[in-house]
Amino acid sequence: MKKIIFSLTLSIFLFSCNKKTLNKSSETILSKEEKNDSTKIKSLFNSALTEGKSYEWLRDLTQNIGGRLSGSKEAQMAVEWSEQLMKEVGFDSIWLQPVMVPHWVRGHKEVANYTSNGVKKKVAICALGFSVATPKEGISAEVIEVKSLEEASALGTKMKGKIVFFNRAFDNTLIHTFKAYGGCVDQRVRGAAICGEFGAKGVIVRSMTNAIDDFPHTGTMSYGDLPNEKHIPAAAISTLAAESLSKDLKNNPNLTFYFKQQCQTLPDAPSFNVIGEIKGSETPENIFVVGGHLDSWDLGEGAHDDGTGIVQSLEVAYLFRKNNIQPKNTLRVVFFMNEENGTRGAKKYAELATLNKENHIGGLESDAGGHTPRGFSIDANSENTALLITWKKLLAPYGLHDIEKGGSGADISPLKGEDVTLVGYRPDSQRYFDYHHTSRDTFDKVNKRELELGSASMASIVYLMDKYLYKDTPVKL
Amino acid sequence: MKKIIFSLTLSIFLFSCNKKTLNKSSETILSKEEKNDSTKIKSLFNSALTEGKSYEWLRDLTQNIGGRLSGSKEAQMAVEWSEQLMKEVGFDSIWLQPVMVPHWVRGHKEVANYTSNGVKKKVAICALGFSVATPKEGISAEVIEVKSLEEASALGTKMKGKIVFFNRAFDNTLIHTFKAYGGCVDQRVRGAAICGEFGAKGVIVRSMTNAIDDFPHTGTMSYGDLPNEKHIPAAAISTLAAESLSKDLKNNPNLTFYFKQQCQTLPDAPSFNVIGEIKGSETPENIFVVGGHLDSWDLGEGAHDDGTGIVQSLEVAYLFRKNNIQPKNTLRVVFFMNEENGTRGAKKYAELATLNKENHIGGLESDAGGHTPRGFSIDANSENTALLITWKKLLAPYGLHDIEKGGSGADISPLKGEDVTLVGYRPDSQRYFDYHHTSRDTFDKVNKRELELGSASMASIVYLMDKYLYKDTPVKL
Repeated sequence: MKKIIFSLTLSIFLFSCNKKTLNKSSETILSKEEKNDSTKIKSLFNSALTEGKSYEWLRDLTQNIGGRLSGSKEAQMAVEWSEQLMKEVGFDSIWLQPVMVPHWVRGHKEVANYTSNGVKKKVAICALGFSVATPKEGISAEVIEVKSLEEASALGTKMKGKIVFFNRAFDNTLIHTFKAYGGCVDQRVRGAAICGEFGAKGVIVRSMTNAIDDFPHTGTMSYGDLPNEKHIPAAAISTLAAESLSKDLKNNPNLTFYFKQQCQTLPDAPSFNVIGEIKGSETPENIFVVGGHLDSWDLGEGAHDDGTGIVQSLEVAYLFRKNNIQPKNTLRVVFFMNEENGTRGAKKYAELATLNKENHIGGLESDAGGHTPRGFSIDANSENTALLITWKKLLAPYGLHDIEKGGSGADISPLKGEDVTLVGYRPDSQRYFDYHHTSRDTFDKVNKRELELGSASMASIVYLMDKYLYKDTPVKL
Repeated sequence: MKKIIFSLTLSIFLFSCNKKTLNKSSETILSKEEKNDSTKIKSLFNSALTEGKSYEWLRDLTQNIGGRLSGSKEAQMAVEWSEQLMKEVGFDSIWLQPVMVPHWVRGHKEVANYTSNGVKKKVAICALGFSVATPKEGISAEVIEVKSLEEASALGTKMKGKIVFFNRAFDNTLIHTFKAYGGCVDQRVRGAAICGEFGAKGVIVRSMTNAIDDFPHTGTMSYGDLPNEKHIPAAAISTLAAESLSKDLKNNPNLTFYFKQQCQTLPDAPSFNVIGEIKGSETPENIFVVGGHLDSWDLGEGAHDDGTGIVQSLEVAYLFRKNNIQPKNTLRVVFFMNEENGTRGAKKYAELATLNKENHIGGLESDAGGHTPRGFSIDANSENTALLITWKKLLAPYGLHDIEKGGSGADISPLKGEDVTLVGYRPDSQRYFDYHHTSRDTFDKVNKRELELGSASMASIVYLMDKYLYKDTPVKL
């Protein structure tokens, strides 16, 4: 009987969860205050979808500046562009926060090939960020294929003089593609550190993507504390090339792989986080951050990673203005520099926040692409996590169902503290790794409505957090 | 107090809705049988994402056959392709169901332009399906812009000799783009019937899309019961052209619009629905239909509309085989012919179902594009609707949150009956009208994972419906 009642309750609830019913029965479910919130959220969505600016801002950033790796001329152009754009949107104050950033450059386009059964095969390849160059003439060596760091480590000195090929594929059965990425990216980040230790000649890594195609995916790597003389060149090859090489190695284990790259790490360069602030009307000492990262990899235009996060963050402030929402707490839009290879901007921001005894009550980061909205991931204490999850009834009509505990983002997580509520915007992840860190991450891959729905989703949760968080948890960082 | 308890229950429940918690606490929430179902659903998704065939099938259909309007050579090729493919997948029986279909042909590419302030502007235009041609030399006339059928009707004979321009735009604030389409499409379907009555010379309609771009969207129209001599040419112009024309008309209300099209309706042509059947193991007399439509408009490749629905429907049967699921009821995969301009295939299928006294217990249609899964729309009696909504707990981990009452689809809705449970697959709708009925509806717009997740979503709900519906509602059609 208990079970029947429970099932019945569950059915009623599940029924009440659905949009249609929510709308119909909103009078019984939503309190007066919640109805006001619902109306405000609707108006934020209406504004974004009819007078949003994010798409044209993104067109400008990606097509007139393009890829903007830390330390590059384009990154500096992006800083100036951001400051100018913030002036147009209108903030109480705008400033550039200086930060020294790594300055790695790719140099000439990389080359790779190997010969199997007398057929020379060209390989789509790109150097990994922070990798050293090969000698000018490139390197040639036999290949050892492995599927994990452990397997590589176990080879020990057997890998001496060889190229180690990390070929563990994404687990495509994971619905959330970021989990598949998380399950593979150690190969890219740490492969060269392990293989350099044992005297390997170089490292090539299968690209980090669900897709089987011919686009190599770059990304950051680290030699850890390996001495300079043990640094070996590291590159990513396309998944199509990885599949092909793996197959050819089965028939011809002694084939010779060749690659050449001319990348180098220059001295650190000066750069900036770009910050726009709207002063809070009630508790201006409490600060809420909304941001993404301004830098991007050099191969594409940095559209989904993270041009979309930048323009959406700015659009939150724009939508607040358009809807006459005056935040009670101070709202800062922060374009972080150097998320891709160093997160120096994020560290600098958090360092100065502590130094200046600033009160950060929370943050929202958009760095998971500009696809259709799915929800938010919450890194907060249990009380605030539970509070945010109750907002699902207000946000579900906009496709925001996945509101749950999880990580926020690389740029705001240094602000973490017991009473700081950090949130990551979570758009649909299915297409993200088709483009991520490749030449395909371009403006044409972004859909206007999906981008605008994301801006409105972000503005809505910032509106709610500004309204409901500050009362209960104005706590010093 | 009551309110507090209610809120608490709501919080707990909303919390329990989220994926993470669902997984963690599945032992307490899911019954033993539901756990079995959950495992089966997971295996369907795993298969689709690792050994799915739908993407390569779609590549073949769209790139080797392409657009396949009813009555065309390509439609016939698609019928043959379908029969062959069904043989490869393996059914207990496969047959072609003859049906006579309308045979409208576009003829040479349409031309349109107008001159404003001495500048001649080319207009992106396409004839609407079933429209008559213009005279060989085209037509020129002054333009009257209206925003609705009512506004047009009110003009009466003032429109005599004029071209009536229907320019009501999509309401972009509607989150579900199909609702915006539903709010505008009367202009395309009925505009010419109304204006032909009053002696207008022609009709041009703003394209049915959220986007502002230069691609005209075709689609079906009807002259209703208007006598032949009152049939006037009807065409769609791009939204960019519509905006431009509307602006120019404000400054120059007497400008002359010119267009030429050579389309015609030929005698009805023979064609087929293509049907594959797996006999039910327990109640084979009960039939469940899964389908989409094989025909498409001629301008693109019929990828999202409805190549994706076709290959997903077939993949349901493929995934059942791969996972050794033997349906209890008979499962029919039906590729309907002529959804776009006549739904003759759907009518024929339903007609023969009645004639042969077949027992249809339900159906699932995929005709809303191949984008990332969002849910299902249910057209059933209240008991079965409530039952399907309880499955949200099993389906939400795959992004299927929107499971609610609503329409199913044009091809299965003729099977409607009190105890027939009809379901429409509902992928995300944001990008759909960027491509719908245009030259842009091509294979490259489809993402492999999104397509496969759709197949698995469909297979999962068919699995559940097959298992749970037949017991309670084996009712004669």
